[in-house]
Amino acid sequence: MRQRFQLPEGVIYLDGNSLGAMPRAVPARMHRAIEQEWATGLIRSWNDADWYPAPQRVGARIARLVGAEDNEVIVADSTSVNLFKLLVAALRMRPGRSLMLGERGNFPTDAYVAQGVAEITGTQFRAVEPDEVLAALNEDVAVLALTHVNYKSGQAYDMAAVTRRAHEVGALVIWDLAHTAGAMPCALNDCEVDFAVGCGYKYLNGGPGAPSFAFVARRHQEGLRQPLTGWHGHARPFAFTHGYEPAPGIDRMLVGTAPQLGLIALEAALTAFDGVDLQALRAKSVALTGLFIALVDQELGAHGFGLATPRDPALRGSQVSLTHPEGYAIVQALIARGVIGDFRAPDILRFGFAALYLGHCDVWNAVAALKSVMAEGDWRKPEFMARKAVT
Amino acid sequence: MRQRFQLPEGVIYLDGNSLGAMPRAVPARMHRAIEQEWATGLIRSWNDADWYPAPQRVGARIARLVGAEDNEVIVADSTSVNLFKLLVAALRMRPGRSLMLGERGNFPTDAYVAQGVAEITGTQFRAVEPDEVLAALNEDVAVLALTHVNYKSGQAYDMAAVTRRAHEVGALVIWDLAHTAGAMPCALNDCEVDFAVGCGYKYLNGGPGAPSFAFVARRHQEGLRQPLTGWHGHARPFAFTHGYEPAPGIDRMLVGTAPQLGLIALEAALTAFDGVDLQALRAKSVALTGLFIALVDQELGAHGFGLATPRDPALRGSQVSLTHPEGYAIVQALIARGVIGDFRAPDILRFGFAALYLGHCDVWNAVAALKSVMAEGDWRKPEFMARKAVT
Repeated sequence: MRQRFQLPEGVIYLDGNSLGAMPRAVPARMHRAIEQEWATGLIRSWNDADWYPAPQRVGARIARLVGAEDNEVIVADSTSVNLFKLLVAALRMRPGRSLMLGERGNFPTDAYVAQGVAEITGTQFRAVEPDEVLAALNEDVAVLALTHVNYKSGQAYDMAAVTRRAHEVGALVIWDLAHTAGAMPCALNDCEVDFAVGCGYKYLNGGPGAPSFAFVARRHQEGLRQPLTGWHGHARPFAFTHGYEPAPGIDRMLVGTAPQLGLIALEAALTAFDGVDLQALRAKSVALTGLFIALVDQELGAHGFGLATPRDPALRGSQVSLTHPEGYAIVQALIARGVIGDFRAPDILRFGFAALYLGHCDVWNAVAALKSVMAEGDWRKPEFMARKAVT
Repeated sequence: MRQRFQLPEGVIYLDGNSLGAMPRAVPARMHRAIEQEWATGLIRSWNDADWYPAPQRVGARIARLVGAEDNEVIVADSTSVNLFKLLVAALRMRPGRSLMLGERGNFPTDAYVAQGVAEITGTQFRAVEPDEVLAALNEDVAVLALTHVNYKSGQAYDMAAVTRRAHEVGALVIWDLAHTAGAMPCALNDCEVDFAVGCGYKYLNGGPGAPSFAFVARRHQEGLRQPLTGWHGHARPFAFTHGYEPAPGIDRMLVGTAPQLGLIALEAALTAFDGVDLQALRAKSVALTGLFIALVDQELGAHGFGLATPRDPALRGSQVSLTHPEGYAIVQALIARGVIGDFRAPDILRFGFAALYLGHCDVWNAVAALKSVMAEGDWRKPEFMARKAVT
């Protein structure tokens, strides 16, 4: 499967959890989209190149990776915008309740969006510690919104158990699959999940700023009222009527004109999953993250690293996070040696293991490089300690 | 300037008001973005390829086309989503008022979004006929939202006069510049406009589904509270704090990760405006639309067409719309002859004249083709009468 990706020489890429590597299928497809479909086909390509149904078609490809069916997943907008739509829609389905529940350590945009929803809807957003989530579920909670795999620690929730408990108190559940989709199997329908959002540019490898996806369980689609009522979510967008009337099914999650260039790149990228057994992908991922932890234990014991990710593979996604007070500079020094991970404030060194394009050898070499960085102390150089705009 | 665009052989493209033609600068720039910045640079390109400041940088290019200053325009999301943000922000700036005023013939998404805002904020949206707008302005109106050039008729409002009248009653104004930006000069700051949104894929030629732009006058930026509070609009997105704190200035209009591939295409496309005098562009546009109207009068009088666009050039944008009860089939027959316009229900034939890449000769040949379609009756063929998904 590694041959399906174009990776630079001399780089071990452990940041596919932030921006996935480029699948080789992308450039030729984009060339065709730009030179033929846009430049030559022009406006006709909305019909002739099947641009118009792309959000649904790409959604169906993602549905297979997250345990959903066709017409339960659609690609649109950003993860933040999709979360806004679904939080409001969920609140509207629980009119007697006014509480959104989340987790304090969640990726910030999820908290920020919930704060924005609380303000505009006059409801409340409460964020608790991860181990307090189940106890905080009660009949005031309209919707529980969690990220399945934590962006910092790599820790994964038990999706089935948490969803079941939320449903027991009558709450709806939104899972953010940013660090799940494409990294590990996910069984949205088997877990009876209500809604989900996810990211196109991490383990799905759709390219920088790729559009996001949203899942709405079929049982909720006809009752869904999301607030961003744009023309592409209308029942008859080309009738150009004055009054909004939501499209049947998942299409009502659409807002404006779909970002075709991003959609086309994402669609081509998803062919990297063709024929991939997600259980085998998971087994490889667990082997890679397990080996990394074992080698860090064995090789780096003297250098003051902590482990932020659970040792039990059932409790983690496809990343391993270390802690170190000099984490920022260490990550920069490691990048200079060709091993690309990233840093998350205040002290997290993140290493993502995209099992489609990484092997055990990469893990050995990455740990060896980290050991050299620490032994030789090159992270102390000023150029590694100066912060960049994007960390 | 036509040499800056790649146009197919045998086509006269009069639909740049729907999807702009492809600037020749785009393919090489996209190739570099994909093969070098993404595939080789990977996550490092957020810093090294200046991906991170792209929304502001591309916004500054657009600012010059719409009479705004750097840091008053930013590129993000879709036009519909940006309109949602600004309608809510405007309502919050006028807390004693609960009315959004619009125009009944506006592009539907503008009306749909306002209806969605009305529902979630508990305010009202009132749409009146275009000639009733000024009379409907009163001290209940928090915000007036209009499209400067109507998508169907091509009729243009007097931006200065309407804005002034709205301000006299204390209302804020949002202009939708979908059919203005890149087509004609626009003086947002001279007209003391409060807010604007616009489209990247029409006269700005950014490619299918290109991201949108939003304008916020500098005097309103510090007080702006838009509801889609995502991490890229945060004051310190990479501090990963729990509480939302808006970025200073226009940056708070951002939500999620910027759609880089779309942004990069749009940025390259905008180089087609380098050195262009917008007054000269407007003069050419007026000459083209004027010639089209004159030739339609002269050549097509017997075929039952009406003119939906004002004859006074001061009252129109860069398109001419005809009416005909068989408009749909006529447009399809015309496309088969290589003259691409489009149709808008129920009876509008739209012809956009993007003055950067069209000449007077194109206008003559387009009218000749339309005359042949009518004289030979080829629009009556069944393949031209059958509706496609996107019209």
